Amino acid sequence: MSADNFGVAGLGVMGRNVALNIERNGFPVVAYNRGDENAQRMRDESVGKNVTVTQSIEELVSLLDPPRRVLLMVTAGAGTDRVIDALLEYLEPGDVLIDGGNSHFPDTDRRAKRLQQAGLHFVGCGISGGEEGALWGPSIMPGGNFEAYERIAPVLEKIAAKTDDDGACVTYCGRHAAGHYVKMVHNGIEYGIMQLICEAYDILRSAAGMSTDQIQGVFQKWTASPKVGGFLVDITAQCLAKSDDQTGDPLVEKILDTAGQKGTGKWTAQTALDLGVPIPTLSQAVNARILSGLKQARVEASGVLMGPGAECEQDRERLVATLHSALHLAMVASYAQGLHLIQAASKEYDFGTDLAEVARIWKDGCIIRSRLLDPIKQAYRQDPEMENMLLHPSFSAIVNESLQDLREAVEIANRGGVATTCLGATLAYLDSYRSEFLPANLLQALRDNFGAHTYRRLDMDGVFHTQWNR
Amino acid sequence: MSADNFGVAGLGVMGRNVALNIERNGFPVVAYNRGDENAQRMRDESVGKNVTVTQSIEELVSLLDPPRRVLLMVTAGAGTDRVIDALLEYLEPGDVLIDGGNSHFPDTDRRAKRLQQAGLHFVGCGISGGEEGALWGPSIMPGGNFEAYERIAPVLEKIAAKTDDDGACVTYCGRHAAGHYVKMVHNGIEYGIMQLICEAYDILRSAAGMSTDQIQGVFQKWTASPKVGGFLVDITAQCLAKSDDQTGDPLVEKILDTAGQKGTGKWTAQTALDLGVPIPTLSQAVNARILSGLKQARVEASGVLMGPGAECEQDRERLVATLHSALHLAMVASYAQGLHLIQAASKEYDFGTDLAEVARIWKDGCIIRSRLLDPIKQAYRQDPEMENMLLHPSFSAIVNESLQDLREAVEIANRGGVATTCLGATLAYLDSYRSEFLPANLLQALRDNFGAHTYRRLDMDGVFHTQWNR
Repeated sequence: MSADNFGVAGLGVMGRNVALNIERNGFPVVAYNRGDENAQRMRDESVGKNVTVTQSIEELVSLLDPPRRVLLMVTAGAGTDRVIDALLEYLEPGDVLIDGGNSHFPDTDRRAKRLQQAGLHFVGCGISGGEEGALWGPSIMPGGNFEAYERIAPVLEKIAAKTDDDGACVTYCGRHAAGHYVKMVHNGIEYGIMQLICEAYDILRSAAGMSTDQIQGVFQKWTASPKVGGFLVDITAQCLAKSDDQTGDPLVEKILDTAGQKGTGKWTAQTALDLGVPIPTLSQAVNARILSGLKQARVEASGVLMGPGAECEQDRERLVATLHSALHLAMVASYAQGLHLIQAASKEYDFGTDLAEVARIWKDGCIIRSRLLDPIKQAYRQDPEMENMLLHPSFSAIVNESLQDLREAVEIANRGGVATTCLGATLAYLDSYRSEFLPANLLQALRDNFGAHTYRRLDMDGVFHTQWNR
Repeated sequence: MSADNFGVAGLGVMGRNVALNIERNGFPVVAYNRGDENAQRMRDESVGKNVTVTQSIEELVSLLDPPRRVLLMVTAGAGTDRVIDALLEYLEPGDVLIDGGNSHFPDTDRRAKRLQQAGLHFVGCGISGGEEGALWGPSIMPGGNFEAYERIAPVLEKIAAKTDDDGACVTYCGRHAAGHYVKMVHNGIEYGIMQLICEAYDILRSAAGMSTDQIQGVFQKWTASPKVGGFLVDITAQCLAKSDDQTGDPLVEKILDTAGQKGTGKWTAQTALDLGVPIPTLSQAVNARILSGLKQARVEASGVLMGPGAECEQDRERLVATLHSALHLAMVASYAQGLHLIQAASKEYDFGTDLAEVARIWKDGCIIRSRLLDPIKQAYRQDPEMENMLLHPSFSAIVNESLQDLREAVEIANRGGVATTCLGATLAYLDSYRSEFLPANLLQALRDNFGAHTYRRLDMDGVFHTQWNR
């Protein structure tokens, strides 16, 4: 092998799999983990491969060909800073450090500045695809210094997922912390779509009284749908099909209904508030996870707070068709909200992000890959400055085709007492967005009444204040 | 007058009115503003009163009886730090500085630490009531050092609003930044209730086709309601009754429907995400304001994205009764979410906040005062550690009485294409909270499938991981 080697620091399952992916693509790897267990697993998994495992940072650096390239694959947070501190003792000007974890974008900015002072390049780089993706081809979202990106691009292009017709799932996402920002929003969209799938499942289960096997059949059929088909529907069908070894029942019925949440979904909701971008489907998905976590309170409340029980929907075939259409539109709205946010952040933080490229690299490898991303890419190619893709003809057509189905799905769920945290938020979002007049005229009157906040008028320019109590 | 004097720095309308309130209650005031305009207005408004106006910080401090008490009434942000910087040159150990603005609670913590190093006391103090409240009696939410609070309590108790039967609307809210935290959540609840009122107005206007005068009649009647009656419904009736001088039409019909938002609503949504407390009614109210701000996009979208138009509800009397009940429950849920958040923050940040006292001081003077606060106070008196008041018999009864009406209100709105951003979020919140089983079991399966996040089971202890694709 004549190719320069590549360092990977942090050998949890994601780090090990990325290391094996890099090696398989022809680049010798120097793999570092301080702890024995992960280092040993890496040794076990790379027998006969061009992977050198070390538990010393100093050795990691000394074994790499300068200018060095080191990919950090450690859990985001203080651990990232600790590894950077250790590496800084040995790295030299010109070396490139890539953070492949889910770091919060302000941390990435801070670290980039710090490393720049030491003459080092820093690339904040989102990587999506889970364990399998890391090994066989993830979607890769690097950002930061463009020269540094160019130095690692040959490797990233080799290890990334490949679309059939649209190249490797990696692109330069933009300046500063753009890579981690794009990955954060990817995860926000992932939160949204997962919760929408769960609500469709819940409507079929609780409002229509279908069995897990019957619901599995629905999702199995949807895996081939050009409207909702994609990785998350694929694995939903897979999860619903899995039997419990112990009882033979569907395994999903045995799982405790409290979802954990990591930082990215929460950060997406928080940054959208800072930038004033409406992403209710995504932020309500975080809220749904928070509510799921209050299991004890919910068990108590379920005995005290009454509501309608399961209501058997007579025409299941029609319900399934309605939900399919509703889920399609709500998934479109999830992408629309996330990309609106990235567009706004790109302006605010000077990322220079190409939205069409973001959609292109999400077409394969990542968790939110779906059949919707190719038309999204095409729409942003046509109109790169588009604020919200819902106004593009490809997607306004979907709104007009499916809004009534979303409306009906929410109504059926509400009547059955099934919470539609994200489906309902999506409906309210679309009904707000398509309203020339919202009731905020009254809101402005109230604010001017008690706080003299002033208001503007529809029929003349200027800023007005009224003494409302006279 | 033998009482010690009191300083007020910052003489915008709130500062001037608080100064006049303090003076009226028997305390000589030294009032400071650097700029000519506000200083002159203060002079004009305090002719013949015991108010000394100065435009010099040095003079402000020299005129105050030590240990001094200075209330800052400046717009939250960098301006607060600038005035503090200037005061620090002249104040002496033992003096008490009170920040009466809407400062973000982390800033209050930072400033308290800084002033403590200089031997000064700092009291972060929320003040609610708008212009009128500031002059005639606001609700006051001080927090921080208890000794410092005791030094200013005699003044605060005099100037605060007085309930008929429950004392002055001021209490020690707790340690550290508790005062500003409580005020921030007060504003978050204010956002929620205002948006709920706007959605009720919008349903009557857009789904039932009622005129502004007819809607005014509904809100006028509701001002006397023991269920929804309170300041915000009072001023809604007032705003809807006001005619435009120019045209004679209802003024509210002339107002541009884009609502501004200040920091407190956004901060409430963001801190709730950090603490993992579900406050969807409050956070969706922020989102509704953000959507209202996208006026140009909405005008464009209204011509492209189709939906049902106005739908005349036949039985208006029944609709009004349904909305009354729905609004009642949604207002209860808004208080429940806000107080849940304060309870969680009090634990996380060691405030030691007495929730019953918070409800008591919101009974009068502040923007969210309503007839619901007395039963809320009583419930927290009975059970001070209560996580969520919805489980208290007084409020679970309201859920059980009104949930069906909220469900119907959302259904009517959805059918008419009227966005129910907050009413819908409240329904989803209540349906989630009262669900023993949410669909997060599937969510956990998905997360374990692609990310090996593991899951727990309903039927046995432990943490599990499954190879879902085998």
